[in-house]
Amino acid sequence: MYVSVNAATSADGKLSSRRREQIAISGDEDFDRVDRLRAEADAVAVGIGTVLADDPSLVRHDETHRASIRGEDASPPARVVVDSTCRTPANAAILAGKPETYVLASEAAPDTRRAAVEDAGGTPVVAGEERVDLSGALDGLESVGIERLLVEGGGEVIFSLFEAGLVDELTVYVGDTVIGGRDAPTLADGEGFVSEFPELALEAVERLDSGVVLEWNVL
Amino acid sequence: MYVSVNAATSADGKLSSRRREQIAISGDEDFDRVDRLRAEADAVAVGIGTVLADDPSLVRHDETHRASIRGEDASPPARVVVDSTCRTPANAAILAGKPETYVLASEAAPDTRRAAVEDAGGTPVVAGEERVDLSGALDGLESVGIERLLVEGGGEVIFSLFEAGLVDELTVYVGDTVIGGRDAPTLADGEGFVSEFPELALEAVERLDSGVVLEWNVL
Ligand SMILES: NC(=O)c1ccc[n+]([C@@H]2O[C@H](COP(=O)([O-])OP(=O)(O)OC[C@H]3O[C@@H](n4cnc5c(N)ncnc54)[C@H](OP(=O)(O)O)[C@@H]3O)[C@@H](O)[C@H]2O)c1
Ligand SMILES: NC(=O)c1ccc[n+]([C@@H]2O[C@H](COP(=O)([O-])OP(=O)(O)OC[C@H]3O[C@@H](n4cnc5c(N)ncnc54)[C@H](OP(=O)(O)O)[C@@H]3O)[C@@H](O)[C@H]2O)c1
Repeated sequence: MYVSVNAATSADGKLSSRRREQIAISGDEDFDRVDRLRAEADAVAVGIGTVLADDPSLVRHDETHRASIRGEDASPPARVVVDSTCRTPANAAILAGKPETYVLASEAAPDTRRAAVEDAGGTPVVAGEERVDLSGALDGLESVGIERLLVEGGGEVIFSLFEAGLVDELTVYVGDTVIGGRDAPTLADGEGFVSEFPELALEAVERLDSGVVLEWNVL
Repeated sequence: MYVSVNAATSADGKLSSRRREQIAISGDEDFDRVDRLRAEADAVAVGIGTVLADDPSLVRHDETHRASIRGEDASPPARVVVDSTCRTPANAAILAGKPETYVLASEAAPDTRRAAVEDAGGTPVVAGEERVDLSGALDGLESVGIERLLVEGGGEVIFSLFEAGLVDELTVYVGDTVIGGRDAPTLADGEGFVSEFPELALEAVERLDSGVVLEWNVL
């Protein structure tokens, strides 16, 4: 499984304000860039924190770009939520319509919630006892043909992926604003590292909209 | 007063780990860049959080560069700590030797602590009742001839400067590592903004060491 992480941060590394509302950090050029990244992925993932905060549908992608890679009748990238207890609401945009949505859950998900997610059109993939065991869950996705995963946040899921050594590539759009806040979500939250920090190699730097895109490979 | 903020962050916007220990984020090329920035400043400032965590002396600067701007007998940039209650320890490196160190304090600083700072060689500048009133304190620095201030952190002081609308320029070295941690210090902490986010304009992007320097003007 090749895992690519992409997110937009303020100049001070925040994904949002302490209110965890969606904030327009980037602009049209960056949206187009993300639509191309999605077109290259087999599936696009976010955490339940992002689903509850932003209610993304994750369906938009660059169809022309996808067709040029996979042919005219290529199916769109699948969708993924990291959601231990199947808290994803039945009316969440990420469950609505097509394409397929995999809900990565753990043994801690009550049967009623798993059933609710299935009724709403989602496909639970269970790995881990309390929180989602990301490595196991990604194996589950691989077994249904997902080889290339684009993770779009939030900071809790991104940190856990780094902690598990699962990230291959990190792309960050750094925008022209300061959000601030010791409690605002950042690109990588969780417990944090105190040693053996993941090392990156800067692959590309590109000015876009009124910010800059930094593309890092994970060593 | 022209206020320039400079700091080094991980790719995820952190100044340090949750342990608040100093972490080598940048390298020699960036140290040289910061030494030139210091040479251009009348004074270099940090918050008391940074003094207690890192014990910086703030004396290193590019003397050749300074001499080329100010002449051979130019005095080195003064030093500044933002420290409401004069907690700066008497043996802190920032108080040792020359040049002069201004301790920005508030009315809340006990007389004994003010006296201790003076005995250790510091010069208290009092503004504000509880925390330092940064605008008033910077006026105090201006009255002793400091027209150009370089602020090197940490995230609490940087946020307050943005909140007070006092920052003219922000330079960030973004390094090739991920630190993570919802409790790790970031480039701008404090309460954080929830609207009317400060706007920046990207002036320059330069690859340096194994990271990139982003230079923003504050609009
Ligand atoms: N600017 C951007 O590009 C961008 C992108 C995305 C999100 N955001 C912002 O980010 C914020 C949400 O981020 P977030 O960090 O709070 O949430 P998140 O990363 O989207 O989701 C975190 C949740 O995922 C679940 N999870 C399950 N297994 C996990 C594991 N192994 N490791 C980590 N999490 C696991 C946990 O809840 P359970 O235990 O209940 O499962 C956890 O609370 C919102 O403010 C949103 O607007 C911004
Ligand atoms: N990577 C880098 O470039 C870099 C640079 C600097 C620091 N750091 C790291 O940053 C961390 C320290 O940062 P920090 O944010 O904790 O501390 P800080 O910003 O250096 O200092 C914060 C303290 O300043 C005092 N202060 C007084 N008036 C203030 C005001 N109006 N606004 C804000 N603060 C005011 C407060 O203490 P009182 O109320 O007691 O006065 C406050 O706790 C350390 O881990 C250090 O290693 C990294």
